[in-house]
Amino acid sequence: IQAMVFGNMGNDSGTGVGFTRNPSTGENKFYGEYLLNAQGEDVVAGVRTPLPIDNLKKDMPKVYQQLRRITEKLEKHYKDIQDFEFTIEKGTLFMLQTRIGKRTGPAAVRIAVEMVKEKLINKQEALRRVEPDQLNQLLHPMFDPRERVKHKVMAKGLPASPGAASGKVVFTADEAAKIASTQKVILVRMETSPDDIHGMHVAEGILTARGGMTSHAAVVCRGMGKTCVAGCGSVKINEEDNCFTAGNVKIKKGDYISIDGSSGEVMPGQIPTTSSEIVQVVKGELKSSQSKTYQIFNSLMKWADEVRTLGVRANADVPEDASVARAMGAEGIGLCRTEHMFFAKDRIPAVQKMIMAQDQETREKELKKLLPMQKKDFKGLLKEMQGLPVTIRFLDPPLHEFLPKKEELVEQINKLKRSKNSKAKQVQLQKVLQRVEELHEFNPMLGMRGCRLGITRPEITRMQAQAVCEAVCELKKQKVNVFPEIMIPLVGTVEELKHQKDIVDEVAAQIMKKYKMKFKYLVGTMIELPRAALTANEIAAEAEFFSFGTNDLTQTTLGLSRDDAGTIIEDYISKGIMAEDPFQTLDQTGVGQLVEIGTKKGRSTRPRLKVGICGEHGGDPASVSFCHKIGLNYVSCSPYRVPIARLAAARAALGEV
Amino acid sequence: IQAMVFGNMGNDSGTGVGFTRNPSTGENKFYGEYLLNAQGEDVVAGVRTPLPIDNLKKDMPKVYQQLRRITEKLEKHYKDIQDFEFTIEKGTLFMLQTRIGKRTGPAAVRIAVEMVKEKLINKQEALRRVEPDQLNQLLHPMFDPRERVKHKVMAKGLPASPGAASGKVVFTADEAAKIASTQKVILVRMETSPDDIHGMHVAEGILTARGGMTSHAAVVCRGMGKTCVAGCGSVKINEEDNCFTAGNVKIKKGDYISIDGSSGEVMPGQIPTTSSEIVQVVKGELKSSQSKTYQIFNSLMKWADEVRTLGVRANADVPEDASVARAMGAEGIGLCRTEHMFFAKDRIPAVQKMIMAQDQETREKELKKLLPMQKKDFKGLLKEMQGLPVTIRFLDPPLHEFLPKKEELVEQINKLKRSKNSKAKQVQLQKVLQRVEELHEFNPMLGMRGCRLGITRPEITRMQAQAVCEAVCELKKQKVNVFPEIMIPLVGTVEELKHQKDIVDEVAAQIMKKYKMKFKYLVGTMIELPRAALTANEIAAEAEFFSFGTNDLTQTTLGLSRDDAGTIIEDYISKGIMAEDPFQTLDQTGVGQLVEIGTKKGRSTRPRLKVGICGEHGGDPASVSFCHKIGLNYVSCSPYRVPIARLAAARAALGEV
Repeated sequence: IQAMVFGNMGNDSGTGVGFTRNPSTGENKFYGEYLLNAQGEDVVAGVRTPLPIDNLKKDMPKVYQQLRRITEKLEKHYKDIQDFEFTIEKGTLFMLQTRIGKRTGPAAVRIAVEMVKEKLINKQEALRRVEPDQLNQLLHPMFDPRERVKHKVMAKGLPASPGAASGKVVFTADEAAKIASTQKVILVRMETSPDDIHGMHVAEGILTARGGMTSHAAVVCRGMGKTCVAGCGSVKINEEDNCFTAGNVKIKKGDYISIDGSSGEVMPGQIPTTSSEIVQVVKGELKSSQSKTYQIFNSLMKWADEVRTLGVRANADVPEDASVARAMGAEGIGLCRTEHMFFAKDRIPAVQKMIMAQDQETREKELKKLLPMQKKDFKGLLKEMQGLPVTIRFLDPPLHEFLPKKEELVEQINKLKRSKNSKAKQVQLQKVLQRVEELHEFNPMLGMRGCRLGITRPEITRMQAQAVCEAVCELKKQKVNVFPEIMIPLVGTVEELKHQKDIVDEVAAQIMKKYKMKFKYLVGTMIELPRAALTANEIAAEAEFFSFGTNDLTQTTLGLSRDDAGTIIEDYISKGIMAEDPFQTLDQTGVGQLVEIGTKKGRSTRPRLKVGICGEHGGDPASVSFCHKIGLNYVSCSPYRVPIARLAAARAALGEV
Repeated sequence: IQAMVFGNMGNDSGTGVGFTRNPSTGENKFYGEYLLNAQGEDVVAGVRTPLPIDNLKKDMPKVYQQLRRITEKLEKHYKDIQDFEFTIEKGTLFMLQTRIGKRTGPAAVRIAVEMVKEKLINKQEALRRVEPDQLNQLLHPMFDPRERVKHKVMAKGLPASPGAASGKVVFTADEAAKIASTQKVILVRMETSPDDIHGMHVAEGILTARGGMTSHAAVVCRGMGKTCVAGCGSVKINEEDNCFTAGNVKIKKGDYISIDGSSGEVMPGQIPTTSSEIVQVVKGELKSSQSKTYQIFNSLMKWADEVRTLGVRANADVPEDASVARAMGAEGIGLCRTEHMFFAKDRIPAVQKMIMAQDQETREKELKKLLPMQKKDFKGLLKEMQGLPVTIRFLDPPLHEFLPKKEELVEQINKLKRSKNSKAKQVQLQKVLQRVEELHEFNPMLGMRGCRLGITRPEITRMQAQAVCEAVCELKKQKVNVFPEIMIPLVGTVEELKHQKDIVDEVAAQIMKKYKMKFKYLVGTMIELPRAALTANEIAAEAEFFSFGTNDLTQTTLGLSRDDAGTIIEDYISKGIMAEDPFQTLDQTGVGQLVEIGTKKGRSTRPRLKVGICGEHGGDPASVSFCHKIGLNYVSCSPYRVPIARLAAARAALGEV
């Protein structure tokens, strides 16, 4: 028990609060405020405006010097930024309290790095001081906090891809593409599909009313590093009136909104944002020598790399993303989804004809058209990642995803019928409709996809294998050093993998003969079905590597479709039945158990089997820590999460959870 | 090396073949045919018509006696029916060959049982002599084999529910219902749905173009003991022209076809069938004292029960099925699917209103209407099964299954729009359509179903619990002894089960108070998700029993939708990638591993945990054998497969696979 001291005993008394460094930027600058002739509550209450601490130097130079000495001593003692309170009673300084100061992400990084340089802490301690998710604030645009508080939240969705974005509302990708060159736009959709890519590319951010953390919008935006709020259920889109409502607020096309992809919040109006210097450097728009923020960030990342044993790769499908991934520190591509190449505008006609084909011959003819395009894709990606491994997953999604939607076809056909014209077009669309209906599945997630496609239609696998192998040969001729790893998706039995591997090996041998050269490649598989994990000892006899597809593995292990899980998970979390969204953070008890079983069983057959994960969990710190613990070789995540995974892996190696 | 003997040395020579018993019926009667002055190939070639063996008694009495003596001795020696060949050379009998005779299912049973009575073999050997699936021929109608050979197979589908049926083709359930009182009909559908039940009830058999071994048609038909060929892909139904084609054959509405549910074959025309005496006895249409076949069958079944340690229950939803199950020897109900009660015509309006309700209050109002109906159902079922346990699974399917299909609604609305009439009806249908769209799921199998329904809408669980508990109390007042076991479906975490169990316990306590009596009940869960099996140690803390739902567990473990798997499995089997359809025979390596893990983990927490399976595999002999091996307490299967499971369980106990 201590005697009370009083700061309101006249103008030689006062009280104040402060930080030994700036808690917002991390700058090593004494920071705080005070009031003369006042008690602690007066500073907090906001009735009188406190003065900046620098003024105290003039008001009471001795007290100020004493305060600086004490707080410096405190910081040295506790080896961390101090948040302190003091009172001056008749010229005598009394310290009321000191504690470790809370700080923003950028401040956390700067303080940690600078304290190492000041020899206050060592590098390992610096890594412990930064929560991996705090890096998000350095890697994405943020709202100006002073402006942000002026705006009310009108709706809240899932924080699907971090960052902050403001822009005019548009409801279609075409509208976005039309006006985005002159104006910032936010694309608002019920849910996005591959048809929307051109609009997503140019939008500042995406807001969807449906879909979860691994919906199309969420995955694509994370890949692009673009702000996204997904599955915002309270957003009701009225397409006819070109507006949407959320609660009482109505937003028309062209109105400004702002979305926060880190919190899931949606605000009406425009809020200024600050851009990320790190991204500017990574994209070559700013020199690293010109960015102190980047230099500090990069120091921490280097220390993380010194400590961590878990590899970090990135999921990337195109050279631009691979380039960002590499600049972010990715040690290879862990997942290139080749289907994204199929969706491109110049390919989709051939893809659709291939799917419409009733016989193998026609299919092969169309595949031949796709071959040079795929080869070019692979060359670009492999070249960008030269010297590092690139895991190429063969075609995975159900074929109907490449065809128009049934509703759209029916509408088009009805329109043509009414106009009593263009009979030929009508007949053609009828055929497409018939094929769409033939390909319809009750549960496409559990249907004709993954290696099942390549087994029932081996010519697809053959074309993809040829494209990879020829790309490798042509790059090797240019002295580009590449490490292709071909990944067969959705394998459930070793027989499936063997079937596909045999095709790849046969094609590779042919291409080596054709180009008169040899090259190394691996054939492995994605473990994304419970059966694959449970029989991993059998599968490892054929697989040269495993990559756990934890998105799909979560879906099957929990029996929960990620596209339909939104309201269920929300309700479960609110009722305390689930602690977290299992599509964000790996369900270690269930899905994690399968990852561990699969790894152990796989290595029981092939002791040096390389094992990674390539689901969305690869960028989630808790999941990364789990992957380190069970001895995986690497995690793979979207390019913008690579630094987070690097830091999380380092912390896991240091025993932090 | 033996000297050749000749049967073509004149009329004192000859040759023949025979069986020591009738290989078709099993009757203990010397059976065979011969030709005088002929060699072996003449008997087989069919140029001359052989004589019945009885004639030999007159032709060559001594040789005949000698043949009888020898073959009787052979049968006694080998202790089984002998299939032999002989030649007579100039009055001297030479035996050419003897081997164990092949026999039909009915013959296998009769021979085995009669040989026990003749003290040739013991009961255990009798059980070893009959393959469980051979019982199918006793339990279902069969085609007259002499008539069957006259008909060509026009298409082949999956043998979805055994038996043989002939009738006139109809394409809708309504047509079937209209004419079935006077004519036999085969209902031909793309696939069936709960809307077709009234037509399925009255049809002789069902033929579907789509769907697998666990499609709606297959499951419902097996439950009814009705012949079904499902997933017959070559059947192209042309609804507009009221016909279907398969290959070159065109069948119009009203034409006769015949289907074989044991082989999957479809034949044009009418083929006479023989009915099953066993089923007639079981259904009370024939006294057991009047059926020798039944008595023989029943002897074997009793012996099986003496040997087996694995329990056999039946899947049944209504008292009539339960009655059949009991007569077939079921020791309880392992699965009562309460949703089948929701589909009944008198309930569906209340069910639909409940689903359409936007708030809990309205939902509860509609559920109140359903309560007395559900209670009546449960009373009927529990009473029928008095003295035996009845497992009642709470509501499982996605709610949209109870609403009209989207396409139908759109069509109805468009029709109303065109007629510019009945605006009110139009508005009402629009509302239903909106709800159908809201409830739409990409993968309903992995969506809002199972316990997820009861957790998000606890009033449904409450109503079902109340219906069970009140039924139990009212039966107990009538001195009916019942053993209800409440089963919570699709549990993935112990928290889900606890949530639902708490509701059941709370309701049960209320009802006990209301009726002023106590009763016993169990609350357990279906293990049908990989996560449930992997965390069974946690779940067993709450679960008083486990029942593996191997249909759904196969879907999630293999990532394969049973409704979409048809062509995939077909292709896989033809390519040697799969040996069997995993929805027919349990995938022991994958799914079986989870069943074993789940059982062990469950019993590690609750050593005396009762564990069963209730998927379609419960009636598959190989799967039953596996369940015995890993120490389950019981299997549950459709009523008509109960004898097969009993025999398979006995054989497993004897070490037969």
